[in-house]
This record gives sequence, C-alpha cells and structure tokens, in this order.
Amino acid sequence: MPSLALGVDLGGTNARAAVVDRDSGEVVAAHKEPHQDRSAEAVVAEVVGALRSAAAAARIDLQACGQVGVGVAGQCHSKAGTVLNAPNLGWRNVPLGPMLSKELGLPVRIANDLAVAAWGEKRFGAAKGLSDVILVFIGTGVGSAIISRGQLHEGAGGVAGEFGHIKVRPIRPTTAVRTCGCGMTSCLEAYTSGVNLAARVREDLQAGVRTLVRDLVQGDLSRVSAAVVDEAYSRKDPYVIGLWEEVADLMGTAIANYVTVLNPSRVVLGGGVILWCPELERLVRQVFEQQASRTALIGFDFARAHLGDDAGVIGAALLE
Amino acid sequence: MPSLALGVDLGGTNARAAVVDRDSGEVVAAHKEPHQDRSAEAVVAEVVGALRSAAAAARIDLQACGQVGVGVAGQCHSKAGTVLNAPNLGWRNVPLGPMLSKELGLPVRIANDLAVAAWGEKRFGAAKGLSDVILVFIGTGVGSAIISRGQLHEGAGGVAGEFGHIKVRPIRPTTAVRTCGCGMTSCLEAYTSGVNLAARVREDLQAGVRTLVRDLVQGDLSRVSAAVVDEAYSRKDPYVIGLWEEVADLMGTAIANYVTVLNPSRVVLGGGVILWCPELERLVRQVFEQQASRTALIGFDFARAHLGDDAGVIGAALLE
Repeated sequence: MPSLALGVDLGGTNARAAVVDRDSGEVVAAHKEPHQDRSAEAVVAEVVGALRSAAAAARIDLQACGQVGVGVAGQCHSKAGTVLNAPNLGWRNVPLGPMLSKELGLPVRIANDLAVAAWGEKRFGAAKGLSDVILVFIGTGVGSAIISRGQLHEGAGGVAGEFGHIKVRPIRPTTAVRTCGCGMTSCLEAYTSGVNLAARVREDLQAGVRTLVRDLVQGDLSRVSAAVVDEAYSRKDPYVIGLWEEVADLMGTAIANYVTVLNPSRVVLGGGVILWCPELERLVRQVFEQQASRTALIGFDFARAHLGDDAGVIGAALLE
Repeated sequence: MPSLALGVDLGGTNARAAVVDRDSGEVVAAHKEPHQDRSAEAVVAEVVGALRSAAAAARIDLQACGQVGVGVAGQCHSKAGTVLNAPNLGWRNVPLGPMLSKELGLPVRIANDLAVAAWGEKRFGAAKGLSDVILVFIGTGVGSAIISRGQLHEGAGGVAGEFGHIKVRPIRPTTAVRTCGCGMTSCLEAYTSGVNLAARVREDLQAGVRTLVRDLVQGDLSRVSAAVVDEAYSRKDPYVIGLWEEVADLMGTAIANYVTVLNPSRVVLGGGVILWCPELERLVRQVFEQQASRTALIGFDFARAHLGDDAGVIGAALLE
C-alpha cells in the first residue's frame, strides 16, 4: 500500500483536498477551492483541481496513491458512492463517487463528513486504537458517527448516526415543542444545535425576557450564540440557568442512552456548542453520569476531538 | 468445518443443550437439565451432562464439533469468557468459558442470551441474510441485541444492547417516576416490561382504579398480565387506553430513536409484551412510524422473531 493517501473534505462552501501520510496521519500538503457553482459537474471539476494542486505541492503523482476518499456534508450511500442528500450543496442522489472516479481514473470512496471525522479521530486522534467509539458532534447541527469492532457502522442505507433526529421531551412541560429543519418536531437538534439555541434565545429576547445575554451582545441579536449564553451562565443569569439545565438534560440523557445501548469505551465530543461552552459541557457530563447504565460506565471516558478541521481530510484519506 | 455444532441456552431455571445442523439451522437433538444448585461448579457439570446427552441422542462425538457456544441470561464479556452478572443465577464474574472449556476439552464461546437469539434469527430466522439488524425483546424484561455489518456488536465491555435501561420521560407529566430493578429511575424497562406493567396495574387496582382488567382477572390480582391488559384495550377500557397510549409512546419512540441512530434494515420484535399483545404492537408501530427519521425508514421493516425458544441454542451453536 502506498505510504501517502488522498482525502477530500467537501463542505457547503468549499472543497479541501489533502495528501496524508498513512503512517503518521500527518497532512503533507493541502489545497482548498471555494465553490463557484454548486452543480455536481462544477464541484467534481473543483475537487479534481484541488487534488491535483495538493498532489503537485507534495510532489507526487495522483495515480500513485491508489484511492481517493471524500467526506461529504450530507447523507451518503457509501457502497453506491451516492450523495443521497446534501442540503448545503442543494444535492439529492448525486453519483459523486462514480463521477469523480471517471475523472481521476482511481477508485473513490465517499462517506458522511462526521463518519470520516470519526474515522480520522480513531486512526490518529482522540480515539486512536479503540474498537468501539462514538463521535458526538454538537455545533451548527447535531450529528454522530459510530465505530463498531474497529470499523465504521454506516447502517443498511448508509445513514446511521442521525443523532440530531432522535426525538426528545424537555424536562419542563411548559417548554414549547420545537420544529426541526428536517420538518419533524421534537428532534434533539431542534433544542440543542447552535443555530436552534441562538434562534430560541433571540425569540425570548424579542418577547422581552430579562437576561444578561442582552447586555453581553449589546442589544445586537445577530451576535447571540451558544458561547455568549454560556458566558451568561457563568455569571449566574437565572434565565440561562433554566435554559442550560434543560438543554444539558436533553443532551446528557441522549448521550447516556446512546452509550447504554452501544457500550463504547469512549465518546469523542466535537462541535462548538460543546467545545466552546465549558459550563454546558460540565452540566452535560453531570447528567450523563447520572443517567448512563452502571455497566456501560465501566471503562468508559469522554475525550474532546483532537484533529480539528483536519479530521475530515485525514479520515477520508484513510477510509478502508 | 464440521456440519454439526453445539449450542447451550443457559437460563435461570435450566440449561438446554442442542446439536444444530450448520447448514439448515435445524435442531438435530436437544437435552434439557433443570438447575439443582446454582453454584458455578454444579451448573458447569449440568451443562456438560446436557451436552453429552444431546450428542449421544444425535449419535455424535462431542469433540467432533470443534466448539461449544453458550447463551447466558446475563451480561457477559465474550472475549474473556466471563459472566459479569446473571441475577437469575446469582452469579457475578464467573469464568464460565474457561471452566467449561477445561471440562470439555473444547473451545467455548459465551454471549448474552439476546445476542445469541439475534444471531440465531440472523442466520436462520427473521433476519436471515441481513447485515444490519436490531432485535428488540419486550417480555419479562426489556433488552436488545445489535448486528452491525453482519456481526454481533457486543460493545467495548461486552454489555451493548441494554435497551431496557435507557432513560425515558412519559408523555403525561402526572405519571409517577418509576424505579427499575437495576436500582435506577426512569429506565424504559420500569415502564414497559411485563413484570413492571403487571405491577403497575396491580398497584392501580389496589388504589381503587375502575377498569375492566378487574373483571377479566375475576378479582385475582395475581392473574394480571400484559395480555389481559391488551384484551381490556380491545374492549375500549378508558384506564387501559390511557396506559397503553403512554406505554406505546415510550416504546415506539425508543425503537424509533434506536433505528434513527443505527439505520438497520429490520427490527425483529420478540417477547410476550409485543407478541401476545396485538393492540399494543399496533400502537407501538404507529408511534414508531411517526417518530423515526424519514431517511432511516427507507427500506426498513419490522418482523416478528421466528425461532421461538430454539433461537438461543441455534444462535449459540453458530457463534463465530
């Protein structure tokens, strides 16, 4: 097997290609192309361009790497190489794998962006060497990826890990049922993602709720974010204390239930709503400890994602 | 590989050993031994006796089968061959695999009873030929087992599948929080297992609730069961309608969330609270359809467990 591998992180705004060292997980060279046009043909040309530029920077021949892996911000059917649904690209059922493979003359493996990030963390990051791990991501959206017996669990239809769309019930019966971007109600994401949290706090501010958040953003509602809310929690703002307790109960219980059924040895936490909100993270871990089954807690720990933005290209490059 | 295999189903009251045809899944011969004494030594002697009797009935030499598989009603660490906790046997940390292996002079593989039942259903039952399946069992207790990429997912500590111990919140805020046999509160099992449902209805009857259940059991509270409650539902008993809606909401949502994160192509349903309660099963499926993510429903179906009491010995015999 060649010692260098090719990985692509395909997001809603750009494609980043990298040459990755298989033995160390190091990114040897990388190149980013912003999307000019989101048609599949334009994006395929962009990805090919980004790969050629990264390969040139690393002074290698593309063909010598033997395979290309691509992590896509959307639902993928890995076996077929199809992007089933990528809202940020406006794609449905795009045969990205075959299209890229034809252009490159190389086998192409595609997977969901969180699946490749989990794979990157498993190979060279916060889950290195572990066989049973879950990555939980709570950022703009909420998602997850599962590694079972050392391999990615992608599910029968390739859409496993949709943690943001499990249905939850807030601890306060007075909390209004929220509608998710997916169209359903009561999804975990509708209560806990960065976008939805900010929207909820803005609604409450507009309705006249008294909270320090208003002062922290100096009245500019566009600046409301989970990190600002967390800052208000640390200053003991009563509105935020209630909100954070509710959100932590939902997240902590959902992660506890996930661990109770899958029994991983670690959950790797990623995404800004966890990584940039230390008070919320502490509360989530407290709820988790109270709610997970005692047997699933034996030998279990949490870790924070290590690889940052590189997890995607590293994981994609090393897909098996 | 020999064409016949040896499997044992080790429960709280007896050990059943069988000789199973690897190619058809057929039980060629079986022998059951009731427990005289629950010490590990006595049970090991019993299992060896049951295996010898089954082998004699099938006119084969035990050694010719090459391996013995055992499904245990308890938590197991398969790699170590240890029964971590089997409440019905009063066992904690019993090295059953090594003990049996020493007596038999054969490799022994042990696993949880629901894991081997799922494996039996996957090899020759309701999940035959499928790679990603969940078995959900709602009977005396509540549990599950996961098959991922064609293999049992046992988890890092061997205790995956503890579906009965996920934490849930009933739809009616007035429903009292219930304590589970595991010592924690709000476990799914505390609201939905046969034992707990019967206990709850008996409590309500003792508190004077008006319901047809009282007539159906002719005032004999020891006869209260999930099946009787289901019968009262079909006769439109208002108390039972409320109870069954709450129970179906908890079960249907929990199964929907399980399917949303794991994306199996099928859930195999087993256990008396589902199989003997057609009204409840219908309600659970309705809630499930409403709550599972749309993408996880593509290509998904339910099936009822096929193999009955043989699933354990068949699955155990064919463990890999």
